[in-house]
Amino acid sequence: MPGCIACIGAGTVGRAWAIVFARAGYQVNLFDAAEGAAAQARQLAQCTARDLEEAGLIASASELVARIQLSATLQDAVMEAVHVQESVREDAAIKRQVFQDISAAAPAEATLASSTSAIPGSEFLESVPARARCLVAHPVNPPSLIPLVELCASPWTAQDTVHRVQTLMRDVGQRPIIVKKEIAGFILNRLQYTLVGEALHLVGEGYCDVEDIDAVLTHGLALRWALMGPFQVAHLNATEGFQGFVDQLQEMMRTVGREARPDYPWDDSLVSHIHASLARQTPIEAISDRQGDRDRNLMRLRDWLANRPDNN
Amino acid sequence: MPGCIACIGAGTVGRAWAIVFARAGYQVNLFDAAEGAAAQARQLAQCTARDLEEAGLIASASELVARIQLSATLQDAVMEAVHVQESVREDAAIKRQVFQDISAAAPAEATLASSTSAIPGSEFLESVPARARCLVAHPVNPPSLIPLVELCASPWTAQDTVHRVQTLMRDVGQRPIIVKKEIAGFILNRLQYTLVGEALHLVGEGYCDVEDIDAVLTHGLALRWALMGPFQVAHLNATEGFQGFVDQLQEMMRTVGREARPDYPWDDSLVSHIHASLARQTPIEAISDRQGDRDRNLMRLRDWLANRPDNN
Repeated sequence: MPGCIACIGAGTVGRAWAIVFARAGYQVNLFDAAEGAAAQARQLAQCTARDLEEAGLIASASELVARIQLSATLQDAVMEAVHVQESVREDAAIKRQVFQDISAAAPAEATLASSTSAIPGSEFLESVPARARCLVAHPVNPPSLIPLVELCASPWTAQDTVHRVQTLMRDVGQRPIIVKKEIAGFILNRLQYTLVGEALHLVGEGYCDVEDIDAVLTHGLALRWALMGPFQVAHLNATEGFQGFVDQLQEMMRTVGREARPDYPWDDSLVSHIHASLARQTPIEAISDRQGDRDRNLMRLRDWLANRPDNN
Repeated sequence: MPGCIACIGAGTVGRAWAIVFARAGYQVNLFDAAEGAAAQARQLAQCTARDLEEAGLIASASELVARIQLSATLQDAVMEAVHVQESVREDAAIKRQVFQDISAAAPAEATLASSTSAIPGSEFLESVPARARCLVAHPVNPPSLIPLVELCASPWTAQDTVHRVQTLMRDVGQRPIIVKKEIAGFILNRLQYTLVGEALHLVGEGYCDVEDIDAVLTHGLALRWALMGPFQVAHLNATEGFQGFVDQLQEMMRTVGREARPDYPWDDSLVSHIHASLARQTPIEAISDRQGDRDRNLMRLRDWLANRPDNN
């Protein structure tokens, strides 16, 4: 038994976190201040667990759900926790109070994470006594199905806290990345809403229809991105890697990129830095093999997507 | 035999188009002005066709490749074509000349398409005698694996030309969308390079590492986008659909979207327009069923991705 994790707040996100931790073998103490909310969340988690079992992704739904226990108070929930995951309403004042309460009741070595997507941790964590053990661990909804987690420390967060939560997230099957400085929207929502902002512009100005935006992703961009991210796509698109790609890049593409970030030119030193990082993962001499892998994976992904059961 | 299609230019894109049309049963006449280029392209197409056969996506690689024939001249290639797909170098002067030559030799009813990604069609098609039958049909590389095609008419393109090419593209298994007015980068590259521009900003300012950008797509955003586009993701993320999603949206997300398009606020009439379009595809009362489909598909997609053969 790896220990006990407290999930504070039992909405969509808190409930999915409970599944993540229980799936990995932790005992989960679930608490929500709203009467009956945690009990309802546990029932919904049962449905999800059954879907996971049917999909062959977990051995037993009932064993998973048995590890999720309802706590009568926040204090009961966190008292013996090695980690606390807060997923209450997106309101800095409420989160500030909840973290005071967690800090007062949790063991002195527990790590304390907020699921906030919209509020920088430093807006509600500064006055928390245990603030060196606090950070943001922002999931993608629902974390039980999408592994990415953004870890973002506040100025007073101990490095050890970041490392421990990073290790925990990997252990429970999530994919943590480190956001090195606080920024509105962290990384994922910045990339998402930058693209959505351009999509609004294209639809609003009548360049295309709403469903065409979605088609460009599902039948175009996302087929590549589900297999490799945009930097690696570029790296494999030229025999000389990312540097070669940028050197051959049509002015049009720079112009579009610069429209979104007029303050951010594609300068040489940044391009070299990105190229070097990509070349460590995929050396230039391996590019042509990886292109073959990419294409074979694309074939299989399209085949899978075309033949999946709920193909709407 | 549905007829004959000419592919002019036998680089990566032209070669992949040859596979698309030959796979659908067309005879393909392949021509490249560079000595030996078309013959080499046909050999490379043979390798791709074998991969497709091995993946179970086509019945016979040799039958497919037998439908790709090398033409000695551009005139020979286009003479009997129902459709001509030009994929020569991205240079307006070269394309202008090639379209003059195609226009002079192709049958009077053939549709003539350019694969250009970076040059608006009106920059090289205006003086072409057959310009009413010309348009841009911009594929995603490689079109043999990625179905999206952006069709963009010039001011003089006949509506009938657009409809015929749209029908042809659907018949050969591609997924055409209509770009209603010329714009640099069309839709796909605008969405792509807007996101890449923000990624450069995030890496350049030290918010995250290069590989974290790629991880945010492969382990986060693209898992959803491979199944449904960003507008539909939002529509299914609130019980009241897209309108409800925007009403609940954190100010942070609007801010990020507006940073990319300061000229493009999320105004009410645009939001209503997008909501209405999405609600025609997925009525509000169907949202909760579709959320279930989405989650079950996400489970299966992650399972597939984790267990695919070339999992790098």
